[in-house]
Amino acid sequence: MKPQDLIRKKGRFSMELSAEEIEAFIVGVCDGSWSNAQISAMLMAMFIRGLTQNEQKALVRAMIYSGETLDLSDIDLPKVDKHSTGGVGDKTSLIIAPLASACGLAVPMISGRGLGHTGGTLDKLESIKGYNVNLTKSQIHETIKKCGFALAGQTENLVPADKKLYALRDETATIESLPLIVASIMSKKLAENLDALVLDVKTGDGAFMSDFQDAARLAQAMVETGKDFGVKTIALITDMNQPLGRFVGNRLEVYECLKIMRCETDSLMKSTLDLSIQLTARLLVLSNAVKDLDEAINICHKKIEDGSALEKFRLNIQLQGGDSSICDETEKFLHEDKILKVPVRSNEAGFVNQILTREIGEAICEIGGGRRQAKDKIDHAVGFECLKKIGDKVEVGEELGIIYCRNDSQALKISNRIRNAYKINAEQPLLENLVKAEIF
Amino acid sequence: MKPQDLIRKKGRFSMELSAEEIEAFIVGVCDGSWSNAQISAMLMAMFIRGLTQNEQKALVRAMIYSGETLDLSDIDLPKVDKHSTGGVGDKTSLIIAPLASACGLAVPMISGRGLGHTGGTLDKLESIKGYNVNLTKSQIHETIKKCGFALAGQTENLVPADKKLYALRDETATIESLPLIVASIMSKKLAENLDALVLDVKTGDGAFMSDFQDAARLAQAMVETGKDFGVKTIALITDMNQPLGRFVGNRLEVYECLKIMRCETDSLMKSTLDLSIQLTARLLVLSNAVKDLDEAINICHKKIEDGSALEKFRLNIQLQGGDSSICDETEKFLHEDKILKVPVRSNEAGFVNQILTREIGEAICEIGGGRRQAKDKIDHAVGFECLKKIGDKVEVGEELGIIYCRNDSQALKISNRIRNAYKINAEQPLLENLVKAEIF
Repeated sequence: MKPQDLIRKKGRFSMELSAEEIEAFIVGVCDGSWSNAQISAMLMAMFIRGLTQNEQKALVRAMIYSGETLDLSDIDLPKVDKHSTGGVGDKTSLIIAPLASACGLAVPMISGRGLGHTGGTLDKLESIKGYNVNLTKSQIHETIKKCGFALAGQTENLVPADKKLYALRDETATIESLPLIVASIMSKKLAENLDALVLDVKTGDGAFMSDFQDAARLAQAMVETGKDFGVKTIALITDMNQPLGRFVGNRLEVYECLKIMRCETDSLMKSTLDLSIQLTARLLVLSNAVKDLDEAINICHKKIEDGSALEKFRLNIQLQGGDSSICDETEKFLHEDKILKVPVRSNEAGFVNQILTREIGEAICEIGGGRRQAKDKIDHAVGFECLKKIGDKVEVGEELGIIYCRNDSQALKISNRIRNAYKINAEQPLLENLVKAEIF
Repeated sequence: MKPQDLIRKKGRFSMELSAEEIEAFIVGVCDGSWSNAQISAMLMAMFIRGLTQNEQKALVRAMIYSGETLDLSDIDLPKVDKHSTGGVGDKTSLIIAPLASACGLAVPMISGRGLGHTGGTLDKLESIKGYNVNLTKSQIHETIKKCGFALAGQTENLVPADKKLYALRDETATIESLPLIVASIMSKKLAENLDALVLDVKTGDGAFMSDFQDAARLAQAMVETGKDFGVKTIALITDMNQPLGRFVGNRLEVYECLKIMRCETDSLMKSTLDLSIQLTARLLVLSNAVKDLDEAINICHKKIEDGSALEKFRLNIQLQGGDSSICDETEKFLHEDKILKVPVRSNEAGFVNQILTREIGEAICEIGGGRRQAKDKIDHAVGFECLKKIGDKVEVGEELGIIYCRNDSQALKISNRIRNAYKINAEQPLLENLVKAEIF
């Protein structure tokens, strides 16, 4: 099959490609027989024309089998995972993985890095001294066998087609294509050979898809694709109109998760705990480990309260080469690096009506807490402590939050940006639900 | 302007690009700051989304000024050109250029090579010993000054953007995009700084656009673009449901043109003469050299009959380094190479109702008379003499035409293909007009 014939069929004639034709495309992506120009033309054609569900399924399948997949069949536990589309302060993976495994599930959590205003699980973990996210396929396997979960980056041979496609999508402004997003996310998750998958699709200002309808469409497409492959899949659409929990920034977010698993959750951290439990409880129900959602939520709370989630995390840190003393000396971990804490104070009095969440993420990115481009290095210690949330009352001069930074000039650089991200009015706003929808 | 922003605007949002944005695209194509992947994504976006007339104009302008243009202002004659979208046996350029210059017009005819089933003017000329089509800009200028026309390939610096775009369009199945075709053709023609331009848009089985409506749309778009740049432009939509004239094949077509200019036109060559005169006469009227079409047609006939067109061609051949003795020893020219003439005979009796014209072109291509890919070498001597045209009566065993080839195996290879291209029925078909429409 000539590349031109397949590009023409999709691009010029907007016809449905067969599973064989889509496989030929992905084979060509991987073996170099399609040029970057040809791959990019096909990506743009798929972006504009869209994919039918048959094409979507074929694309995901071809991408999964472009490399090796995880085989955890010798582990006699339900295999589950959670994926989030990314947000600001979105740190639930660090709780869900140990919590789910404390509840008797196996979690092969292949994760990613942060980009732009959103953080990434691998970056957060690397703020733990010695923690190794670069596991081989067999190391992932062994780690799951020993502690119930692994948190690792994509191995060299897991969905190699996605690496090449993602780079070209980034180059050609085709990142935002729904079927290509679905293919990228779902191929990696389905290569884990799961029984159940929960998707956390963020919506709101700090989300990748700010619009609820876009988020719902993406959620629905991913759920359908998961089910196409026999994986029990649901999606929650959750709020990203303010940072999740108390902290934004890599080390700060690990700190927050440790605090939560140490049963030291405060009111500002509560949304992180709540969402982590909502997502984990659904994994328990989907994988038939627990019958009913309320019971599953209770079990999750218990596994936090009795310390089993923290113990799972401790064991995992040890297995992945990290310094597990952070589970006990949590404050010391927070202050490991020399850091400056600079408060951002309100100029106005009233109620927080809105937080420009993407702005918060971008500001942290600006002082090195995130990356503009995939190759950028990041500073794990910097971040933001969010002391006022939507609906909170604020006085003039009161702290909205605290910038964690390396020097005054960094604080100077972003404190106005952060202050301006808070929209303060006289009226108290209605509070939005954290979980806005569930897509089955 | 980041490539991604422009690609996103056109591809994702289907918004009109500004003239500055389109210029940035073309600058990026030429200076290498846009990757092939990015250019191809934009080409596919333009293909699917289409271009507004403003975008079309901006694209043509940016392409023209991607390189140098011809400046013939010191030649005090109307500057005109003709462009054909290409067909089988379409050799009118070789008559129009000398004929128009014999009528007092200057013709800077930058031409192309054949691809697939269609021939190219440069290839035809290269069947003349010594004829040099690779002229520099100043050689083109000098040649026009001395004999009124030049027949040459695109110089290095004439519309360099088109060379790169065309190669990528070929690679990514975006050749067939109407606005990209318009941009490619019109940028090269408008870089000649013409007063008048006549477009010969072929329609029918042997044409690039087989469908009349597609041809009309292309013609209309090119005419509008020509006028946008202040060039008097019209298009004729002409029949390509059978080879034009008597011969198909490079040397054979030059021979036919010589015969016509020597006033030795036979009935099989008449369509070549007629179309050449129709097109040239329109150039005379458009450039205000002659008031009225009938008068212009008369003048054209006279300039053939009195030998002035042939003398112009003779002078041009000398100026471009070719052996002009072919103007006198025309039969010798035809048989310069050792060639085998193999008749193709009909198995049926009746009337020729249809000739699969593309098949004829492809068959000649198959024995080396054309090229599959731009880098292929061609054999100028091979071709086909078309002895039966649509409407002609045929007996069993009668010659449909003659294959000019190098050996028996070539003849064997294509004679059935050519025989099968002739559709013979009992009924006499209605004859189609050679000129089907004129677009002002």
